[in-house]
Amino acid sequence: MDIEAVMRTKAEEARKASRKLGVLSTSVKNKALMAMADVLEKRSAMILAANEQDLEDARQKGLKRSYLDRLMLNETRIRQMAEGLRQTAALPDPVCQGNYSTIRPNGLEIRRVRVPLGVIGIIYEARPNVTADAAGLCLKSGNAVILRGGSEAIRSNTAISSLLAQAAYENGIPEGALQFVEITDRAAVDVMTHLSGLLDVIIPRGGAGLINHIVKNSSVPVIQTGTGVCHTFVDDSADQDMAIRIAVNAKTSHPSVCNAMETLLVHEAVADEFLPKLVEAMQAKKVELRGCASCQAISEAFLPAAEEDWSTEYGDLILSVKVVRDIDEAIAHINQYNTGHSESIVTRNLTNAHRFQREVDASAVYVNASTRFTDGFEFGFGAEIGISTQKLHARGPMGLEELTSMKYLIYGEGQIRE
Amino acid sequence: MDIEAVMRTKAEEARKASRKLGVLSTSVKNKALMAMADVLEKRSAMILAANEQDLEDARQKGLKRSYLDRLMLNETRIRQMAEGLRQTAALPDPVCQGNYSTIRPNGLEIRRVRVPLGVIGIIYEARPNVTADAAGLCLKSGNAVILRGGSEAIRSNTAISSLLAQAAYENGIPEGALQFVEITDRAAVDVMTHLSGLLDVIIPRGGAGLINHIVKNSSVPVIQTGTGVCHTFVDDSADQDMAIRIAVNAKTSHPSVCNAMETLLVHEAVADEFLPKLVEAMQAKKVELRGCASCQAISEAFLPAAEEDWSTEYGDLILSVKVVRDIDEAIAHINQYNTGHSESIVTRNLTNAHRFQREVDASAVYVNASTRFTDGFEFGFGAEIGISTQKLHARGPMGLEELTSMKYLIYGEGQIRE
Repeated sequence: MDIEAVMRTKAEEARKASRKLGVLSTSVKNKALMAMADVLEKRSAMILAANEQDLEDARQKGLKRSYLDRLMLNETRIRQMAEGLRQTAALPDPVCQGNYSTIRPNGLEIRRVRVPLGVIGIIYEARPNVTADAAGLCLKSGNAVILRGGSEAIRSNTAISSLLAQAAYENGIPEGALQFVEITDRAAVDVMTHLSGLLDVIIPRGGAGLINHIVKNSSVPVIQTGTGVCHTFVDDSADQDMAIRIAVNAKTSHPSVCNAMETLLVHEAVADEFLPKLVEAMQAKKVELRGCASCQAISEAFLPAAEEDWSTEYGDLILSVKVVRDIDEAIAHINQYNTGHSESIVTRNLTNAHRFQREVDASAVYVNASTRFTDGFEFGFGAEIGISTQKLHARGPMGLEELTSMKYLIYGEGQIRE
Repeated sequence: MDIEAVMRTKAEEARKASRKLGVLSTSVKNKALMAMADVLEKRSAMILAANEQDLEDARQKGLKRSYLDRLMLNETRIRQMAEGLRQTAALPDPVCQGNYSTIRPNGLEIRRVRVPLGVIGIIYEARPNVTADAAGLCLKSGNAVILRGGSEAIRSNTAISSLLAQAAYENGIPEGALQFVEITDRAAVDVMTHLSGLLDVIIPRGGAGLINHIVKNSSVPVIQTGTGVCHTFVDDSADQDMAIRIAVNAKTSHPSVCNAMETLLVHEAVADEFLPKLVEAMQAKKVELRGCASCQAISEAFLPAAEEDWSTEYGDLILSVKVVRDIDEAIAHINQYNTGHSESIVTRNLTNAHRFQREVDASAVYVNASTRFTDGFEFGFGAEIGISTQKLHARGPMGLEELTSMKYLIYGEGQIRE
């Protein structure tokens, strides 16, 4: 098979469809999303059969349990996918939303409105629900989409995407707007990341390895998402009970996600008092603790932290802890090792809260709250395609607005420039 | 010289400075910009002497007159650079401007504010005024900047940038925030485009060759600017006198800039009547005309247009003209050949005006006005670092806001996620 030719054809079809999709009415898009939701529920048996084959293969390959869990579908998860599509249908359409308007001294009326990006490529790994989530968000925001899921979920994704595409096209979405890549060969990703002029952006969703590979090699613009080395800094003025609650929540409520805490920093003035309480609370949750020399001097519970611990996203019940001299060292440490995701300070000191928020370089900077809130739903956007950890275009949780660009519309009456 | 090491050091110094610059008060930044303006005027003799050497070399190399004109400085142009810096000082500071704010049901207060991008790389060609313009806009928006100008302007740029840096640092701008690359070897550009993690974005300013090279090769995110294959479509209902005025202005008022028209499309129902008038007006301005077969059948003034004419940015007194069946063909032609810059329709028909604005894919879409207005000053932004022709991050004229990213600031009282 000529992978290059197959991928190019998909992208050209998507681009052609995107011209029509970009000006499609909100009501047609919503109706299609509702039909897509219905078909997933109605044909759940077909999806589950395909998923069972994927799971069987994965088990035979000896993939680990957390991986199998991400791959696994059941009636509940299919219902959640369908509900996600219905919620997306209920969100405001970002297309044509205006956010700047002026009249110039020469009488030119200028306004700026949101327009779709065009064609979005999504490259993702095990979770088959991304197929439905991403398709729904892209279509609602007027974008054609090319979906490239992981090879281990190929049967589940093929079943879901073929059902979605059929329902979409039967309900007014332009043919070609929803492309799924059935090619499991990795070469398909490399072709996709070089279709400049056909794809407007690629959003990778998955582990750091996948994302770094795409960022380094893509000539199509990329939005980096989801790597999170998140910190909590316990200031000397912190309410320590609050700090413990926040730390335990940030570390243990869902350790595998990107907004979970990986490193806790504590002000040296309160380390003696705070660390024993932290050790007790974290051990009760079976968290492995790795600490700097000062931590180890305070409690035997700490294994020694190596330099690489400070830049590691464990995604697991492991926490690195460091005692710092003051807020300056805390901010400097975070700005050196973080991935620009989510950072939190626990403090009663207004000046320190303000300095931390201004000087820490990250998409979300918290005062007295858990980093776990960085999420499109928690922020009130109603949906999320990922969490951008870069600064260009979008930063933080990306909802429908972040899947749009802008366009200036100018009305004149024959104006010419002197 | 180890170019890689020199460039990396510059970038590291810029990044370090950017941390302080990002939280610097507006008044300090403005004072520094005023001092930078003053020093250019006060030391104009030094700048002009350096510029004269650049010009002498360029003449000996036999570079053409339009190039020498871009390179040339005089007292007036230096005064304009200084005025540009003063105008930038007078603009509102975008840093910390809020554009989203909410309180969530759990009591979390979330707001989104503008923050600097960090370190911006500018790669440009002949015009030495870019050195001052770019430095001023980047510093005002809280960004450190690495400037890499063309080798032909190396002495002029070195003089300007050293004066600017000294004035800036003497007035509170953190040392290192303004980096100039004295290395004329092209390898410096290739190193610069691979300093991921140190540079947040690269903005190339110059010809299509420079821009394409950087877009294809950079692993640092790039904002594409300035290539303009702009169209004017004369609809069958157009006020033809207005159409002539707009066409002449769009083609001839400044043919070398990116918002000048390159192709005119005319509805076949009015081609017989309109084209002779267009020929007369364009010939009076010494414009060479290249047309499709229908144009040639109507007037002998048209040379035959080849396929490549439709995608050529002449930047000169040349215009390609095509007769189209209807607005559908006009929109399809534009979406096939344009560069996403500026497009205009001349019409009295409301439906066609609306369709043209919605369906044409470009950063600025005009009704009854010249494409020449696409410009930060004309749009009311007070300044411009370039005109983005891409969809990600910024589209159209880029002012100070487009040199910023965003950050979410979240205030809690101990909230944890269920």
